Amino acid sequence: MINTQLLQQQFAEGLDLFLKGCSDSALYDPIQYLLSLKSKRIRPLLAMSVCQAEGGSVEDGMPSALAIELFHNFTLMHDDIMDEAPIRRGDATAHVKFGENAAILSGDVMFVLAYEALEQASELPQLLRMLNTTAKEVCEGQQQDMEFEGRDNVTSSEYLEMIRLKTSVLLAASCAMGAISAGASNERVGLWYEFGEKLGLAFQIQDDYLDTFGEQKHTGKRVGGDILSDKKTYLRIQTQAKTELPDTSNCSESEKIDVIRQLMVDTGANVDAKTLMNEYSADAFNSLQKLRLDEGVNQWFSALLNSITERLS
Amino acid sequence: MINTQLLQQQFAEGLDLFLKGCSDSALYDPIQYLLSLKSKRIRPLLAMSVCQAEGGSVEDGMPSALAIELFHNFTLMHDDIMDEAPIRRGDATAHVKFGENAAILSGDVMFVLAYEALEQASELPQLLRMLNTTAKEVCEGQQQDMEFEGRDNVTSSEYLEMIRLKTSVLLAASCAMGAISAGASNERVGLWYEFGEKLGLAFQIQDDYLDTFGEQKHTGKRVGGDILSDKKTYLRIQTQAKTELPDTSNCSESEKIDVIRQLMVDTGANVDAKTLMNEYSADAFNSLQKLRLDEGVNQWFSALLNSITERLS
Repeated sequence: MINTQLLQQQFAEGLDLFLKGCSDSALYDPIQYLLSLKSKRIRPLLAMSVCQAEGGSVEDGMPSALAIELFHNFTLMHDDIMDEAPIRRGDATAHVKFGENAAILSGDVMFVLAYEALEQASELPQLLRMLNTTAKEVCEGQQQDMEFEGRDNVTSSEYLEMIRLKTSVLLAASCAMGAISAGASNERVGLWYEFGEKLGLAFQIQDDYLDTFGEQKHTGKRVGGDILSDKKTYLRIQTQAKTELPDTSNCSESEKIDVIRQLMVDTGANVDAKTLMNEYSADAFNSLQKLRLDEGVNQWFSALLNSITERLS
Repeated sequence: MINTQLLQQQFAEGLDLFLKGCSDSALYDPIQYLLSLKSKRIRPLLAMSVCQAEGGSVEDGMPSALAIELFHNFTLMHDDIMDEAPIRRGDATAHVKFGENAAILSGDVMFVLAYEALEQASELPQLLRMLNTTAKEVCEGQQQDMEFEGRDNVTSSEYLEMIRLKTSVLLAASCAMGAISAGASNERVGLWYEFGEKLGLAFQIQDDYLDTFGEQKHTGKRVGGDILSDKKTYLRIQTQAKTELPDTSNCSESEKIDVIRQLMVDTGANVDAKTLMNEYSADAFNSLQKLRLDEGVNQWFSALLNSITERLS
């Protein structure tokens, strides 16, 4: 059986131990800070649970789990600069707390740490290729996300490809690298990748949904942020496909949120988003069944998938 | 015999070929731009020449040469943001030309490309460790460099450690990774590392010297930039050790440069810098002799060393 709490504790210990190897340069302060903020740590949990499901040990899965989590946090540190985001996980972003230059440079060295974590992995060449490919895709996704800001005609398929690159390939790589670390066959690595990719798409659609229809007490951030910044989410694109968005330039922020959110309900875009998320979730479930896991393990991953689509935060 | 021009041409072809593998995302435009600017490309030349000196082929040395040059340019792209530098290699810096966000993100993906270049290397684990260690040190050096800006009491040994980390370990790694790629023994890899490290220190001292005592027609940048920005170079630290620097707050820029430069001459700090550079150069030469290379090869590396200490640009 997979023990979620135990895996999370083992990862936390592995991360602490790994970071102890860093010099005491102030360069590492923003890294320690960002990693200390409350986080679900879904990616290392996936890497370690998949590794275990494929018969690998905690030690086998740790390099990949560390690499993925360090890489993910590196992208957060740099994305927050680019997006001028003040808040991350309910606290000040690293660049706000330490300055932009510190966040650029500490992000860079966190990226090095991700590769350093892989040094001891037995399946190094395959893991390195997967991390490289994924890292390029994540950067390409962020590039598309920034380009979409200046465009009014983003299609839903363009949006879905953007979130696939920016978010879901990293969840896919978490699963695939966990499987590779356990010495799984290429076919099984591929199925785990598919599972993670579809789970990642469902995850991001739910993220967007909660940004508009969630509650601040659960999400920890102001509800309606995507509406205020005119972000081209699936919700917005579906709404625009069915009706023209009204001019809200004279509205207050809360009026704008209310008006657009109501339109998303009236046009059924909220239902479209839930439907699409459920389709991705079903795809992920199908990939999972093809893996023919032991019943208890299958249940654990199914429950994880459900927790992502049912989550409130 | 080592043919400089041939190696440089082979590297340029290898780089072109490697970059052809990138997608057509605008993400790669700042990378293509920065790599198209005129550059001495000393690091890949070192990697490839050392690989050849140790009996390796062009193909053996190419992954390391690419990784080092891509990593170096990634650091330039991000350092130029942090330093708010408008000019690089006589042209606009990437963040000025493409915007700061583009330069952050393109720098990140250039860093991925450096690791991607290593994927095909036969000595992957050892090369990855060397690149990781070096990358961390370079970031730590940049961190120190930024910290020194806010300090008045930087010692010469602190300064020399900073330039060792920020500049010379990468030249050392260029040599060492070239040797590793050719399958050289650990002892020989270590000697090549020493050669590159000392050459790198001489290189940076000469860089500082030319910033103050060079000519713009050779260096392509305004002479006296370090003086204007009160940069704690070895020249300045040695001058301050012998005399108090005058208050130049009411001077024009060119007056300030003239006054401080004259003091550097009067105190003999300029001679101190040249002496130290020659010591590093002699250390590098000694490491080279311990390698007992064929006469022609030894001469080529000696000439390269001389060209660095004698250079005007």
